Amino acid sequence: MPIIECVPNFSEGRRSEVVERIVARVRKVSGVRVLDYSSDPAHNRSVLTLAGDAAPLKDAVLALFEAVIPEIDLRQHSGEHPRLGAVDVVPFVPIEGVTMDACVALAKDTAAEVARRFQVPVYLYEEASNNAARKNLEDIRRGEFEGLAAKMASPGWTPDYGPAAPHPSAGASVIGARMPLIAYNINLATDRLDVAKKIAAAVRHSSGGFRYVKAMGVRLEDRGIVQVSMNLTNYEKTPIFRVFETVRREAARYGVAVLESEIVGLVPSAALTCAAAFYLQLERFSAAQVLENRLRP
Amino acid sequence: MPIIECVPNFSEGRRSEVVERIVARVRKVSGVRVLDYSSDPAHNRSVLTLAGDAAPLKDAVLALFEAVIPEIDLRQHSGEHPRLGAVDVVPFVPIEGVTMDACVALAKDTAAEVARRFQVPVYLYEEASNNAARKNLEDIRRGEFEGLAAKMASPGWTPDYGPAAPHPSAGASVIGARMPLIAYNINLATDRLDVAKKIAAAVRHSSGGFRYVKAMGVRLEDRGIVQVSMNLTNYEKTPIFRVFETVRREAARYGVAVLESEIVGLVPSAALTCAAAFYLQLERFSAAQVLENRLRP
Repeated sequence: MPIIECVPNFSEGRRSEVVERIVARVRKVSGVRVLDYSSDPAHNRSVLTLAGDAAPLKDAVLALFEAVIPEIDLRQHSGEHPRLGAVDVVPFVPIEGVTMDACVALAKDTAAEVARRFQVPVYLYEEASNNAARKNLEDIRRGEFEGLAAKMASPGWTPDYGPAAPHPSAGASVIGARMPLIAYNINLATDRLDVAKKIAAAVRHSSGGFRYVKAMGVRLEDRGIVQVSMNLTNYEKTPIFRVFETVRREAARYGVAVLESEIVGLVPSAALTCAAAFYLQLERFSAAQVLENRLRP
Repeated sequence: MPIIECVPNFSEGRRSEVVERIVARVRKVSGVRVLDYSSDPAHNRSVLTLAGDAAPLKDAVLALFEAVIPEIDLRQHSGEHPRLGAVDVVPFVPIEGVTMDACVALAKDTAAEVARRFQVPVYLYEEASNNAARKNLEDIRRGEFEGLAAKMASPGWTPDYGPAAPHPSAGASVIGARMPLIAYNINLATDRLDVAKKIAAAVRHSSGGFRYVKAMGVRLEDRGIVQVSMNLTNYEKTPIFRVFETVRREAARYGVAVLESEIVGLVPSAALTCAAAFYLQLERFSAAQVLENRLRP
């Protein structure tokens, strides 16, 4: 059976009873598994991780909108994280036995139904978008809910589905398809924030680094060290080991050592086995040699 | 559902029609999957890889004996690989949701039934054996089929189950439980066999190396290089990366580089993810973060 992951983000991270009611509604959809969910009060935002085949996942996203719309009013919402909608962003991610094209089709199908049923405008993003200016989530979300009415009225910002003006309380949603994303941080044995920032600039795509890396340098106040905090958006094309080795080499330039690295949340097995294959110089190695891949083909 | 792996070795690797008949008989056992099988004509021996729960695996092993006994007569058998029986060795390996103790119980249960039904003497080995002199497969198999009658008559070699003399055509079988075994080779960028032999001696348990490593130095004639050829018998306690790094350091002592390494056959995912965690200096990493482990708990 094909496995698609779906990671909806919605704009409530403080009222835990509301979050629980919303998650409970999604859990009722048969054929979908809730792998994880977590809320960030500072961001005032929650993230759900779902897995299943296309049809039940579409049902789960519709159930999510149904539960969220009466509970979340963006006119009353504040938080550190940028957001455009009550259900803010819904990515579909191909995991096993399914193509990216199938996830793009699922994103469009779900978006059309969300717009029709809830009168929420929807922008497609990443692989589901054919518009270069509207592929990147940051570009779509710029201006946030507060600037949405003006943005939607400006040239080039007619939504892909639904009304050409924001939903009064739920704003707009961004739905699309993308590769699995790995949240990957490297901690440096120094308190020099300038070093972390220089290294982040060296590895991230936007300033000349690797194609599928987003990065920033941050201070970990409580530990007195700094971190290169990254999202790896395509671990097949920009593998984790290459990013690690580059950060390590750049840090050495400043006389700084790598203290440790960490993966936040989930990581596909293949992202780690390819790192093992690199360091162990494995020749003629294939994923078919991983026992678990044989046990459940 | 618990997953146990079973890797029976039987003494036919030349007559492919015989091998096919034997494998076909095992395939008929419901609840068991034949993950792989391969024959080595020089060894005149075949290896089957099965997976399933305890009860169907026991049935599969009984079906294997039933198919093998009329087809293989060790009095007519020759090959490079040491062997004691027509069905030579049957290890049960805990993979998922099952303890080593359960595999030991399965080994004993299967051994008793094999002895009862086919009048084949059975020695327990590895984790299933309580006798220090009869844990190691090499020790049990020493003398081979040709020396078996004399060995069985000597003190300390009464079998664990079945008659105290060899089965006339099928010899004796060795049944037990062990950790997954990884066949792991490291190729060196040199044709100096003495270097491969010295490194093998440095890393293997029997000459002072790591507890769970068997190793020998061999020449790869066709490529003009040498290889440290190893079995890693407990990758949790002697991890693959530590063996690789030690071989690399020892080789450097002779001015020799590691050309590549290779895993022959199957490897548990955890053996590779722990190598990734080592090289990437991953902190706070757990197997629960591997997406696939969540998808199928």
